[in-house]
Amino acid sequence: MSDTNPSPPAGYYRRHVFFCLNDRTNGEDSCAHHGAKEAFDHCKARVKAEGLAGPGQVRVNKAGCLDRCAGGPVAVVYPEGTWYTYVDPSDIDEIVESHLKNGQVVTRLLLPPDVGR
Amino acid sequence: MSDTNPSPPAGYYRRHVFFCLNDRTNGEDSCAHHGAKEAFDHCKARVKAEGLAGPGQVRVNKAGCLDRCAGGPVAVVYPEGTWYTYVDPSDIDEIVESHLKNGQVVTRLLLPPDVGR
Repeated sequence: MSDTNPSPPAGYYRRHVFFCLNDRTNGEDSCAHHGAKEAFDHCKARVKAEGLAGPGQVRVNKAGCLDRCAGGPVAVVYPEGTWYTYVDPSDIDEIVESHLKNGQVVTRLLLPPDVGR
Repeated sequence: MSDTNPSPPAGYYRRHVFFCLNDRTNGEDSCAHHGAKEAFDHCKARVKAEGLAGPGQVRVNKAGCLDRCAGGPVAVVYPEGTWYTYVDPSDIDEIVESHLKNGQVVTRLLLPPDVGR
């Protein structure tokens, strides 16, 4: 094949955050039952208010099931691959201010590495 | 703050692929009008059939609008931050075989860096 595998370019987004918004309607639990949509909306609004949104900066994105449901609600920040679990808007504020704005992981909100479905 | 910023751990997924499945109903164009759902389903099935799915391997994920609509339908592979545009299932097969399985970017399907909303 003629494909090459160059060093990745600087990302289109510096940080790309994906919130699981999965909303199961079969009686099983899911992130949407734990304030995921509200957290997504809050994060998106905070990132915009901080002037961080857009190409070269931060994108806050809706996602389907990220398959780490046991630790939900969850979100992941790429390209770092940092996984968070959160409870309330102040957790989101801390992720925005510390990680998305200043590149410092919020250790207390990290999803333990062994948490899966 | 007491936060630390250690080197990122090996990712929970080695590669995490997000397909834009945005389906606008206001008359504007969107990825769902160009076979995005079918491509997502095909990619997920191929990754599973190849034995690549799961923690430590590959996750194929639904996403909302990735805001690079002018190049849609689009998908992005993290942690590399490789953006693709695709037309048909054979494009997806090539991404799975080359990039997701063997780590080789499929150059001909790369989304040009200046493509935005």
